Amino acid sequence: MVDGMQWSFSELIFSGIQPTGIPHLGNYLGALRQWVKLQDDATTDTTLLYSLVDLHAITIRQDPRQLLQWKNESLAVLLAIGLDPKRSIIFHQSDVPAHSEMMWILSGQASTGYLGRMTQWKDKTANEKENSEKLKLNLFSYPVLQAADILVHRATHVPVGHDQAQHLEFAREVANGFNHIYGHDVLVAPETLISPARRIMSLTDPASKMSKSHYNPKSRILLTDTDEVIKSKIMGAVTDSIDGISYEPERRPSVSNIIDLIYHSSADLTHADQYALAADLSNVSMRALKEQAADAVARLIAPIREHYRLWSSNEALMDMVAADGAERAAKSAAPVLLQVKQTIGLSR
Amino acid sequence: MVDGMQWSFSELIFSGIQPTGIPHLGNYLGALRQWVKLQDDATTDTTLLYSLVDLHAITIRQDPRQLLQWKNESLAVLLAIGLDPKRSIIFHQSDVPAHSEMMWILSGQASTGYLGRMTQWKDKTANEKENSEKLKLNLFSYPVLQAADILVHRATHVPVGHDQAQHLEFAREVANGFNHIYGHDVLVAPETLISPARRIMSLTDPASKMSKSHYNPKSRILLTDTDEVIKSKIMGAVTDSIDGISYEPERRPSVSNIIDLIYHSSADLTHADQYALAADLSNVSMRALKEQAADAVARLIAPIREHYRLWSSNEALMDMVAADGAERAAKSAAPVLLQVKQTIGLSR
Repeated sequence: MVDGMQWSFSELIFSGIQPTGIPHLGNYLGALRQWVKLQDDATTDTTLLYSLVDLHAITIRQDPRQLLQWKNESLAVLLAIGLDPKRSIIFHQSDVPAHSEMMWILSGQASTGYLGRMTQWKDKTANEKENSEKLKLNLFSYPVLQAADILVHRATHVPVGHDQAQHLEFAREVANGFNHIYGHDVLVAPETLISPARRIMSLTDPASKMSKSHYNPKSRILLTDTDEVIKSKIMGAVTDSIDGISYEPERRPSVSNIIDLIYHSSADLTHADQYALAADLSNVSMRALKEQAADAVARLIAPIREHYRLWSSNEALMDMVAADGAERAAKSAAPVLLQVKQTIGLSR
Repeated sequence: MVDGMQWSFSELIFSGIQPTGIPHLGNYLGALRQWVKLQDDATTDTTLLYSLVDLHAITIRQDPRQLLQWKNESLAVLLAIGLDPKRSIIFHQSDVPAHSEMMWILSGQASTGYLGRMTQWKDKTANEKENSEKLKLNLFSYPVLQAADILVHRATHVPVGHDQAQHLEFAREVANGFNHIYGHDVLVAPETLISPARRIMSLTDPASKMSKSHYNPKSRILLTDTDEVIKSKIMGAVTDSIDGISYEPERRPSVSNIIDLIYHSSADLTHADQYALAADLSNVSMRALKEQAADAVARLIAPIREHYRLWSSNEALMDMVAADGAERAAKSAAPVLLQVKQTIGLSR
């Protein structure tokens, strides 16, 4: 993956997810499933770190009890989907102080002008208008924490969605700026692993992505939904009144989304793409199409739901996994942070 | 000192100084000597923390080797002036990750509008004008780190100079804001101990304060200057051509500054104030006045210089002191940080 000429470091994959409770099918097909694939495909000398970035979660006001619950649920899901805590380092970000320490140090690299031009900050200040000065510091500065998350482990590869590409570019600039000033290859500018676009759309509003924040819970399928709930949600999904089945994401987003569900959820399909699949299904009824989708999704989710139940019912084991992950993540960060501190004169 | 009704916490005094090398006499008489007095006067249940705030030092670009040297020199000076590492907790800020962790958490309390109105930020953006967007994040956000320094130890009292009163007020607002939101007395809004004004002026330019950054080293007396150097600097100090000796800081800043040196440096004076001292000295020559000042300052500095020599020649002992201070400071911060994390839902 890495050309091997620039650095002597081994490959290290870092990615983070905010602990916002049970992920939905769109999260899984869009990102989480790739985390498992990266783990399972990685060579033995590749390190994989997956962080529940709870320090990012608090850039929005959170109910403390709910945040704690979401942290537990999110950890159980990562384990349930197949991340192996013996192979991958899975940890709560706030358990590893090096992330915050690195964040402060990199605050000396990040220019306020650059941060002010980040899309999300611009959107927020535009939305708030004259109230924008009430916006909190962490909404402005969190791209530096994201950079710290990645750079403190000397990550070489970061899987991200398209919407995070700007933040990755920022982290690369911070790393290169630091190295430029101090004349050392202390930090590594990571490469982006853009996930293949697998946008799963809302079941009730096919113009929008499936989302945790949509008011209607029937718009999304959770990774813990039962077979019955999955069937009910998919059978009740919005479709169109055009005759026949065809894969046309622009003209027929609802039907195409159901074909996507079948295509991405089925392990045994041999079709080259969704168009080929749709051609095979062109004569089935809408009801039969939805039934096939419900079956495929239920088969995909059933083992995740069962593993989730096992993990989440064993709090002591989860605590051990979290403590072990934190310890290993701290060990991963320690030599990088020390070298950074030595480079800038904080440590001998 | 504290009224004892509001909190069940014992008194805790926190103060910090940037590691910028050997302090000058103005630093000592203005702040550092008070640190020693606070230590020596404190009741046994009072905790005292004195931090070399190296994470603040890096808000300005530093030469790494010089910063490291300055950290060592500053630690040796704190010990040389009489801070007792068995009584007070003396530590390098960057050795205690809880400061950075607390800084990030409090970034969710600090509004960007408030930070933008802090005097030092306004001055800096005004000076830089169109280049202001190159200013780094830590120049904008460091008041939050200052607040974290204080709040993470639940300091009840913070000795500061007049120029820091605004930052203390900010820390108080952050603490009160946090407690208001979460409905607990988790954080303590500290009281300010304003030092008695003891502004020592430059020897070569009596309109300005004695300063480390003045281009002329003869403008300041360092705590490691020899008797000869002290005498040479004071004898060469700027004076005025008005007849006689009088204490008139507005009209005769240079002569008044030399009277201040005698007054603040002499342990055996019985005069009520500098006016009374000046009345006793009204008929001496300017040369005799300077000689008296040189003697008084030399007597004040000699034991500090000697203790500095002893401490700074024992690097292993200094390392032990720093490690012990870091460990005790970490222990001071740990329960507060944990309670903060529990309060906002990061920890159980």
